[in-house]
Amino acid sequence: MDAFKFELIKEDKHTGARLGKFTTPHGVIETPIFMPVGTAATVKSLLPQTLNEIGTQILLSNTYHLYLRPGSDIVRQAGGLHKFMHWDKPILTDSGGFQVFSLSGMRKITDEGVTFRSHIDGSKHLFTPEKVMDIQGELGSDIVMAFDECSEFGYDHKKAQNAMYRTLNWLDRCFNHFYQNNDTQKQTLFPIIQGNFYEDLRIESAKKTASYAKNGIAVGGLSVGEDKEIFIKMLDVLQPYYPDFMPRYLMGVGSPDYIIEGVMRGIDMFDCVLPTRIARNGTALTSKGKVVVRNSQYKADFTPLDEQCDCYCCKNFTKAYLRHLVNSGEILAAQLLSIHNVYFLLKLAEDIRNAIKNDCLLEFKKEFYGNYYKIR
Amino acid sequence: MDAFKFELIKEDKHTGARLGKFTTPHGVIETPIFMPVGTAATVKSLLPQTLNEIGTQILLSNTYHLYLRPGSDIVRQAGGLHKFMHWDKPILTDSGGFQVFSLSGMRKITDEGVTFRSHIDGSKHLFTPEKVMDIQGELGSDIVMAFDECSEFGYDHKKAQNAMYRTLNWLDRCFNHFYQNNDTQKQTLFPIIQGNFYEDLRIESAKKTASYAKNGIAVGGLSVGEDKEIFIKMLDVLQPYYPDFMPRYLMGVGSPDYIIEGVMRGIDMFDCVLPTRIARNGTALTSKGKVVVRNSQYKADFTPLDEQCDCYCCKNFTKAYLRHLVNSGEILAAQLLSIHNVYFLLKLAEDIRNAIKNDCLLEFKKEFYGNYYKIR
Repeated sequence: MDAFKFELIKEDKHTGARLGKFTTPHGVIETPIFMPVGTAATVKSLLPQTLNEIGTQILLSNTYHLYLRPGSDIVRQAGGLHKFMHWDKPILTDSGGFQVFSLSGMRKITDEGVTFRSHIDGSKHLFTPEKVMDIQGELGSDIVMAFDECSEFGYDHKKAQNAMYRTLNWLDRCFNHFYQNNDTQKQTLFPIIQGNFYEDLRIESAKKTASYAKNGIAVGGLSVGEDKEIFIKMLDVLQPYYPDFMPRYLMGVGSPDYIIEGVMRGIDMFDCVLPTRIARNGTALTSKGKVVVRNSQYKADFTPLDEQCDCYCCKNFTKAYLRHLVNSGEILAAQLLSIHNVYFLLKLAEDIRNAIKNDCLLEFKKEFYGNYYKIR
Repeated sequence: MDAFKFELIKEDKHTGARLGKFTTPHGVIETPIFMPVGTAATVKSLLPQTLNEIGTQILLSNTYHLYLRPGSDIVRQAGGLHKFMHWDKPILTDSGGFQVFSLSGMRKITDEGVTFRSHIDGSKHLFTPEKVMDIQGELGSDIVMAFDECSEFGYDHKKAQNAMYRTLNWLDRCFNHFYQNNDTQKQTLFPIIQGNFYEDLRIESAKKTASYAKNGIAVGGLSVGEDKEIFIKMLDVLQPYYPDFMPRYLMGVGSPDYIIEGVMRGIDMFDCVLPTRIARNGTALTSKGKVVVRNSQYKADFTPLDEQCDCYCCKNFTKAYLRHLVNSGEILAAQLLSIHNVYFLLKLAEDIRNAIKNDCLLEFKKEFYGNYYKIR
């Protein structure tokens, strides 16, 4: 029996949206889905118990961070990442590609791999495709990401093409190493489409990457600073080239409007640090747009963050209280706003799934957008 | 019917320990009890839901902090502190006396009251006994503390006597103002015994303070830097002078051994920031003593903080994981260690109550101490 299985329940008549069920060794994921990010084996400020209560189905963690601290050997000795962080639902681990490329000035890329210095202690390390598969094997995540070269917005065609080819070459090495060494009853490998913002490169990458995709495929390098129109155009370009019977994961995308645009173009999985990061800065995502809780207008506002929200924060606390916590630098502010923000995106994914089910995704989108830009 | 009632269930035959039930408008408190501190209307890093899960019966908040931020008027408009912070069990508010006296160089004490500058914005304020009663009236706490002058360890007899007399004078004003203006169906006033470390002053203060005590009495100004022997001696001196049929609250004491010594000398209620403060510094209280989680000896220690503990942290996480969180500066470290540390003191109070019930407090103390100093 296959450890991984994707069931395509329904395709939307009016858009590219899909309703699906993705079975993994640690449980079933309903798609489209948002995945909260637990970079260092913790979704910042949220207990696993709380993640369960707000309906988290899968979460993300990070190869680069865990390799450096506590060390993937420690995680392996702990019995794997699920046990280490007390999370028994599915986990996807990013390959660290994006992180090592973000270490400007501290890394060197060759065909062999990437040499980089730790942001923690400056120590020198080498990531190769093979090593990154081994590390994720030690972590024991359900979904392993290929090691890719993330090219920046603004690369010329030649540079973008080189990065795309290198990513394909590395993918071939990831694939061979993974299927020889990792336990495919416990893990699956998602390859990543790159190609910067060039249509021809994206299409070539999509076609060639598809042949390495067994249980899922990812799109990397979007939502990295480009205009929304370019983002949407790239998704339009890619849409015909995905394999059908597996989930498609759009990496690093988590703003509500981008999720909706992605779903309409055939994307099933999303992740982003956005909800927890802006929570720690005192900002909430609501059905009427972003609320900057610190603003003095909320000083004596005894209504919840979002009247329509059923989360623990909105059911029990007022904007005046949250503002007080933010102003006082209290940890509880980050906790309550993170609960709300992550719940908000999980609820959005649920609403999207229901809209697909009920053939009303376009109406849902119109209504959501109508409200969402009210307080911007 | 009285809104407050203290039922003395049992007095220990071998020590001064008492088992009691203290009824307040927001519920019944079993004594001896430890009260977690929520200085700024939040027990740092703990959701009210979590406080309930670990068995919190009453918590403490602070007049000085809430008066300055968000302002007691905001709390009043919110419907009082219980509603503001979503805590429907009893709340005790400290008077702010200790806080304003800790603002060295920023405050001036006269018979009228204390003029001080805000630690937040430097603005000038005056606390009088009457004003402090009014503020606590706005906060709506169940237990209101009198405004006292906290004398420091090292004061000479004359200075300590002056502070003690001023505290008595202020208590008289607190008492008159409270019983004329506050709602005694919702709040009660605890007077505070002072007198520094002079036996005669402590005894005089205890005798005179007792006549203002209707539903409870407090001991202030101990555990402020003196040796443990002096702390214990002062409790021995005071023990004969408390009114019997009301709870006695020893302010600012929360280390396990001090709680046990206090209980044996007739104390019923304790509070301290210790469990949450040391949690944020990465230290845990355990049945074998303090564990400094950051220590490298725990790098690959896959056992819980405390094998004997039933809290969410000990049931689900290892020292290796907690060490990783502390080292990574993750908020979850403070959350999990705060859960454990507060649970540890609440469980200690429960164990003490059971020991009194079963006539084995001295045996309990011996066993607890035998273990507690193991890893010091």
